Parts: sequence; structure tokens; C-alpha cells
Amino acid sequence: MNVQKTCEQFRTYLDRIKALQNASSLLHWDAATGAPRKAVDDRSKTIGILAAEIFSLATSEDMHTYLTTLEPSVSELDPITAALVRECRKDYDKMTKIPADEYKAYSELCAKSMSVWEDAKEASDFSMFAPLLEKIVDYNRKFVQYRGHEGHPYNTLLDDYEPGITVEKLDAFFGVLREKIVPLVKKIAQSTKQIRTDFTSRSFSVEQQKAFSLYVLEKIGYDLDAGMLKESAHPFTLGFSPNDIRITTHYYPENFTSAIFSTVHEAGHAIYEQNVDQDLAGTLLSEGTSMGIHESQSRFYENILGRSLGFWKYFYPKLQELFSEQLKDVSIEQLHEAVNHSTPSLIRIEADELTYSLHVMVRYEIEKALLEGQIQVKDLPSIWNQKMEEYLGITPKNDKEGVLQDVHWSDGMFGYFPSYALGNAYGAQFVHSMKKELDLEKLVTEGQFEPIKTWLRENIHRHGKMLSPNEIIQKVTGEDLNPLYFTQYLEEKYTQLYGL
Amino acid sequence: MNVQKTCEQFRTYLDRIKALQNASSLLHWDAATGAPRKAVDDRSKTIGILAAEIFSLATSEDMHTYLTTLEPSVSELDPITAALVRECRKDYDKMTKIPADEYKAYSELCAKSMSVWEDAKEASDFSMFAPLLEKIVDYNRKFVQYRGHEGHPYNTLLDDYEPGITVEKLDAFFGVLREKIVPLVKKIAQSTKQIRTDFTSRSFSVEQQKAFSLYVLEKIGYDLDAGMLKESAHPFTLGFSPNDIRITTHYYPENFTSAIFSTVHEAGHAIYEQNVDQDLAGTLLSEGTSMGIHESQSRFYENILGRSLGFWKYFYPKLQELFSEQLKDVSIEQLHEAVNHSTPSLIRIEADELTYSLHVMVRYEIEKALLEGQIQVKDLPSIWNQKMEEYLGITPKNDKEGVLQDVHWSDGMFGYFPSYALGNAYGAQFVHSMKKELDLEKLVTEGQFEPIKTWLRENIHRHGKMLSPNEIIQKVTGEDLNPLYFTQYLEEKYTQLYGL
Repeated sequence: MNVQKTCEQFRTYLDRIKALQNASSLLHWDAATGAPRKAVDDRSKTIGILAAEIFSLATSEDMHTYLTTLEPSVSELDPITAALVRECRKDYDKMTKIPADEYKAYSELCAKSMSVWEDAKEASDFSMFAPLLEKIVDYNRKFVQYRGHEGHPYNTLLDDYEPGITVEKLDAFFGVLREKIVPLVKKIAQSTKQIRTDFTSRSFSVEQQKAFSLYVLEKIGYDLDAGMLKESAHPFTLGFSPNDIRITTHYYPENFTSAIFSTVHEAGHAIYEQNVDQDLAGTLLSEGTSMGIHESQSRFYENILGRSLGFWKYFYPKLQELFSEQLKDVSIEQLHEAVNHSTPSLIRIEADELTYSLHVMVRYEIEKALLEGQIQVKDLPSIWNQKMEEYLGITPKNDKEGVLQDVHWSDGMFGYFPSYALGNAYGAQFVHSMKKELDLEKLVTEGQFEPIKTWLRENIHRHGKMLSPNEIIQKVTGEDLNPLYFTQYLEEKYTQLYGL
Repeated sequence: MNVQKTCEQFRTYLDRIKALQNASSLLHWDAATGAPRKAVDDRSKTIGILAAEIFSLATSEDMHTYLTTLEPSVSELDPITAALVRECRKDYDKMTKIPADEYKAYSELCAKSMSVWEDAKEASDFSMFAPLLEKIVDYNRKFVQYRGHEGHPYNTLLDDYEPGITVEKLDAFFGVLREKIVPLVKKIAQSTKQIRTDFTSRSFSVEQQKAFSLYVLEKIGYDLDAGMLKESAHPFTLGFSPNDIRITTHYYPENFTSAIFSTVHEAGHAIYEQNVDQDLAGTLLSEGTSMGIHESQSRFYENILGRSLGFWKYFYPKLQELFSEQLKDVSIEQLHEAVNHSTPSLIRIEADELTYSLHVMVRYEIEKALLEGQIQVKDLPSIWNQKMEEYLGITPKNDKEGVLQDVHWSDGMFGYFPSYALGNAYGAQFVHSMKKELDLEKLVTEGQFEPIKTWLRENIHRHGKMLSPNEIIQKVTGEDLNPLYFTQYLEEKYTQLYGL
């Protein structure tokens, strides 16, 4: 067998999969950004058929032959093809180790479960959702057995979102977060500092908000010739290739900061993928290497830059120009304080930068215990509420603002949540290294975002999936994941902000 | 072989093709309505791969087996599956009778040719384009031999766009048009009637034009919950299923009537496909039955309704409300006259309702002679100009406004043009039947478009591709294509308008 020729055929074969994935992505994009109401059913059918085509190509006899032919020669392959072989093997094993009929039944269960979860959340009644969630948990426990696991069974699922991360590492990680953040939250609760937030609910026209979002995007380095900004119910980023990474945001007339930070958050994701090496374009390596590293980029732009005083020193004049009436009695410092106001709250996606990781910790501990079989699905509402009380000092009044708030479990996404917290920590760790080379605060205050993007591109973005999360962390910071950079960042920031 | 089971498998197989076609359509839609500039190359690659997947499924051994298994039992099949077998056979033969390597070379030639044509048009130099067009013509002549033909070789290509139409029928058809329209054009040229058009080039805001387009769309019965209106360089309609038929228009601030009639024209196409029976949704039968019947619907809405006095009696108040300043000195009658002003012109897509068919006739005669080998590509500019002089009394000054104006030939679309003229004639013939049941003028003047749409749905739209063009014409009008309805309509309309 001629390896060179097999390589070419393999790459052409992957191009077919990628084309179907691009098509499927565009169908999703279209559905979320304005497809006609009546098109929903036909659209779902089309998406379902494409998913089956992709599955069929990714698990075919041909794919198996490519992998078994190329794997013995992997050291002779060019680095991109070698990485593709590695990634395809992971996907192949993941998809083929689970019996096809069980996976199909599970997919149907998840599809049904999402609408049941919606109804249960609306009714704030966990018991409606519990029977399905039990089955989903059972399937996941069984699938982990099919797929195999090293150490804790949860590790296999964690690896799907954050390759290399384990329960062992996460226990240590969240241990540090718990130890450092919980006392900080309590100190703030006792602080007498008054932060003005009255002006954030004044009325801001959507058109003007949009103009500001576009202004910020252009300045911070999102390439609008290789993407676009649209609106959707929930903001998201969707990528095709470095040349087409799209984002959405959502404007609330009476909550103008929401769209700003959503836009900047998604821009962080998008700048990551826009700056992957063009050599990787069109391959499955042209993505962020993990959910956690992705989230480190979005939260870097949203929080570390976007909620810094320097950022607002630079952008506030433009904001005031657009909203002169609404902001006439608001200083830069007052705006900066308002967007960093921290208080324990019930809903994860509305949580502030400080308390956010604690929400994730609640979910992590529950998922881990479910996978172990240590806790029962029926007990989740009370377990949830206990943990919220313990870490955040508040208790949900009902299931809607408690255990039912997130969609993830209804879609079987166990192992996803920790990446949100990892992203925060990775981001702070990267910044520590970045600051050795760049005067970050000065650059941001002067609106010089290009050197920052260049640093991120050279150190992180350009690699796409060529490097694993841990390889990137090691390469950039010289050590493994270390949550102390994040907790130090939080301690400094909130000590100053609240005069603790 | 169990026919019932084969039927089901066949339909599932076709669902796969349709899903890929839907995906491909959405990629085209996205490209035309705002995909990022830098995405063009990646996008073309994705579209190319999907096209190859579709081709591969449509010409596969599996498809051959389905067809040969089902064809002997076609009388036992349900009518939809029987029609699908018929359509798939046509496509299969068309695609497989031409040797694959020649078809590939031809496709590449066309792709290249389109950009050469663009440059040649820009430079107004036919000699740049002629060598490629010669090859395209040669390929088409050869392909017709591969595919076989009854009667004139051009018939095979005509049939691709308008099943059942032949050179014999078109010669007679255009003969009548020539005989009736050419003298009418000359009479108008000698008329002393003064028509005001000064106000059509006043400045009309795009936002307000858009509001008017949406207002008209809703009133005439385009379902915005099963479609959408966007903007693109050239207006077009794109359909997925009756539940998602999208249209675009193009606004010119200094030519407000352009967008109105583009919008109404595309709405005519879209209303056709939105009203195909839901039973056919998701199949390849959920389309207009031919280009000509399609065009009859778009031109019915655009010209027969949209350029009638009754239409403007109903819509003018709204237009004047939106543009009170620009239209303060313009009466309904003056607007009606302006949008029907007829004068020989050089560019087909800008031609008025009366002279339009003559532009098509020029192209028909040239294509027919090229397919026969009666004329040479190099002589096209002079042949073109002679015919323009003969039918319209004007001669292009250069190739750009003459033989190079249309994109069709650069993409190998021979046989397409006649459907534009057939559409006009079908439309008038349908209206003759419609008027036996509906008081069309009264309904339009009162803004009652629903009974009109219902009549079209029951008689034409709902059938999709279940009936051939000629079956529909026969069923609705009781006779074959008869161009006299169209020429009578023109004679009456223009005699009155110009007081001939």
C-alpha cells in the first residue's frame, strides 16, 4: 500500500465529511438567525439526514481501512495528516464502540427529552423531567463502559470536551476555587461599598446598541470580512473555516450591557478560530482545541479585557456619544463598577465573573456523583439546593431557577460544564504569561488590540487542534493548569473594586 | 422483489438526495445574501463537493437498480412514486449518457468561461469570449448526439427547461409573436402620446422601499412565515419546500419601480412553489413543472397584475403615504403609464413587457442555428445586431450591450431563453381561462388577491411537477399553447395606453 496515495485519498475523504459538516452548520445557523417559522420540520429532517450521512462516512469500512493503513506509518506522515488520523481514530472509536441501535435509541431519547425539559422548566416541575434524565444518565454510564475509561468513569466524558482532563485534576482544581472564592464572596457580602447600577436598566435603542457592538468588534480585531454579526435568541459562535466565523448577539433595550458582553464574548471565540493557520482550513483541525481553551479566549475578551477599567477608558467616549442622554450622569468609573458588580445569584448564565465558577462547581460535583452512581436523579433538586446554599449562600425557590435551569443534561451533555470554569482559569494563566511580554493595561487603554491578538494568535490560535489543551498550556506558561493565577486575579480585582 | 419495500427504500434514497440539494441551495442562498467576502473559496469547494455527492447518488448503481426494478411495475405504484421514477429516469439518462470525463471537462470549461465572459463583457470584446463559447457549443452539439434527439437536435436541450417543447412548436410560436408584436412596436414609435417618466428617477429611501415591498408581498399573498425577503445583486427565488420559499430583491434609490416589480416578479415564482401540495413536500416534485410555467406565474404577478391600473388604484395610496414628497405631483394614471412605457431598448432584462419577447426571439434563433451548425460563433456579433435592427429597429453600439449582455451561454444554458417568452404566453392564456370564473380587474382594484391565489393554486400550483407543462395548459385552458391570447392582450393594452 502506497502511504502517500492513501494519505491523499484519506484527505479527500475527510473533505467530504467536512463539506457535509459545513452544510449542516449552515442549516443550524440559518435556523437560529431567521429561517421561516414554517420551515422547522423540513429543516429538522434535512439536518437529521445530513447527520446520518456524516455518521456513515465517519464510521465506514473505508474510514476503518484508512486508519488501520495509516496508523502504522503515522511517524512518516506530514504533521497535519498525522493529527487528522489521531482525531479521526478518537471519533471512530467513540462512535463505533457503542452499539448502533443503542446510540440511535439514545439520540431519540435526547431529542424527546429536550422538549420535555422545556415543559418541565416552564412548569418548574423536576418530576416531569426526572424519568427521562434517569434514562439519559443510565445510557451515559453504560456508554462509558462500552467506550472504556481510565480511572473514574466520568473521565471518558470529560475527555470529549477537554482532552486530558480528569476527575483527579478537577477535584484539585475546584478545591482551590472553593477555598479561595467562597471566602471572597462572603467578604463582598459584608462590604459597605455602594455600586450604582440604576442606569443599566435605562432604555437603549437596539439600533444604537448594534452600532456600538459593530464598533467594538472592529476595534478589538474581529474580522467582519471573515464573519458577520447577527441576532439570535441565545448568542453563539459558528465556524466554517478561518475565513468564515460568525457570531450572534441578543439586544435587550433595557439591559444594554448584556449585548456588549455577549458580543465581546462571542468575538473571543471567533477571533480564536479566525486566526487558526490557513494550512488547517477545511480540515477538522481548524477549530479550537477544546471547550476549555475556547472558553479561555471568550472570557479573556469578555472579562479580562472587557470588564477592565482600561477597556472603558477607551470605549466609553464612543458609548457616550451614542447614548448621551442615558449616560450623561455616569462616569467611566461608575460604569466600570457596575459591570463588575458581584452578588450571589441563582442563574449561571447571569452570574458575575466572581461567582460564576461556583455555579459550575455545583454541576461538576453532581455529574461526577451521578456517573459514580452515588446519588439518584430523583434527589437532584435537594442536592442542588444544598450546594447552592453551601457555596453561594442562597437557595433557589423552585426547580426552574434551580436544577432545571440548564439545557445541557436534557441533551446528554455530561462533562461539558467544567470547561466553563477551566476557561476562566486558563485565561488568567495565559494572561500571566502575556504580561511578561506586553503591557496589557496600557494597550487596552489606548485601544491597541492588534498586539494582543498577535500574541494570542502566535501562542494559541494558530495551532487549532494541532496541539492538545495541555500542550498549549505547557508551551505558553511553562507549567500545567494552575488555578492560582485565576484566584489571584479575582482577589486583586475584587479587593480593589470593593475596597476590602 | 417486493415492490412496496423497494418503493420505500427508493423514497428514502431520494430523501438523501433532496437533503443534499437543500444544503447546496442554502449554501447558494447564503453566498448571494451576505456570506463574508473571504468565505468565497471555501464555500465554492463545499458546494463542489456536495454537487459531486448528489451526482454520485443520482447516477449510482443503486439508482439504476431502483429504476429498473420499479419501472415494470409503474402502473401499480402510487402516483407520486410513479412520477418520481419518471423524473429520476430522465435525470439518470441525462447524466449517464454523457461520458463522465467529458462532462467533467465541460463543467470545468463552463466554470472558467463564466469569468472570461465577465471580463469580455467588461471589455466589450466578444473575441475574448468566442474561443470558449465555440467549445461550449461543440460540447453541447456532441452531448445532444450522446443523449439522442427526436427531430431537431435543439429539441433535447429545450426539453431540459420546458418538457415537450420543440423547434417546430417554437417556430410557429415566435412566428405569431413576430407578426403581431413587430408592427405594434412600430405603431407606438410613431405615436404622439407623451408619457411622464421624470418622477421615476427621484430619490426614494431604501428603507421605505423595503417597507412597501413587504406591504405588497403580504397583500398579494406571499407567505412570510414560509419564506423571507432579502437583498442580493440580482433578484431571485430559492425554494426548499412549500414551507420555505425565499426571495430577494434589489433596491435602487433612484429607480424605485425596479425593486417593486422585481419583488412582485419573484413573489409570483414563490407563490407558485409555496402552494404546491404538501404531499409533495420534500420530494423533487415540489417545484414548478418547467421554467416556462414558472415564468408564467412570475410575469402574471409582475405584469398582468402589477402593471395594471387596478393594482395601482389599490396600492397607490400606500405608496403615496410612504413617499408623499416624491409623488405629490403624480396621479395614479401617470404612475400606471410610466410603468408601462414601451420603447425599443438594447438590454433584455431592462426591456418592457411589449418588446421583451423580441429579445428572446433573437436568442432563440441564434441558439437554433448554432445547434444546427448553420452559423459560426465568430459571426454572432453581426448576426445579433442584424436581428436587433430587424425586430426592434435599433442596433447595439458594442458587444457589451449586444451579444455579450447575458450570462447564460457562458454557463452552457442553451434552451433556457425561450421559457421567458413562453411564460408570457402561458400567463395570458391562463388569464383568459381565469376571467371566465373571476372578475380579475375588480378583485385587483379591491385588493382581493386571495381568490386569485386560490384559483392559481387549484389549477396550477398544487400539481408541482406531477403534471407536465402541456398537461397543465390543456387542463386549464382546454387547448395547447396558443400565443394569440398573449398578442391580443398586448394589442388591447398598448392600443389603449397609447391611444393607437
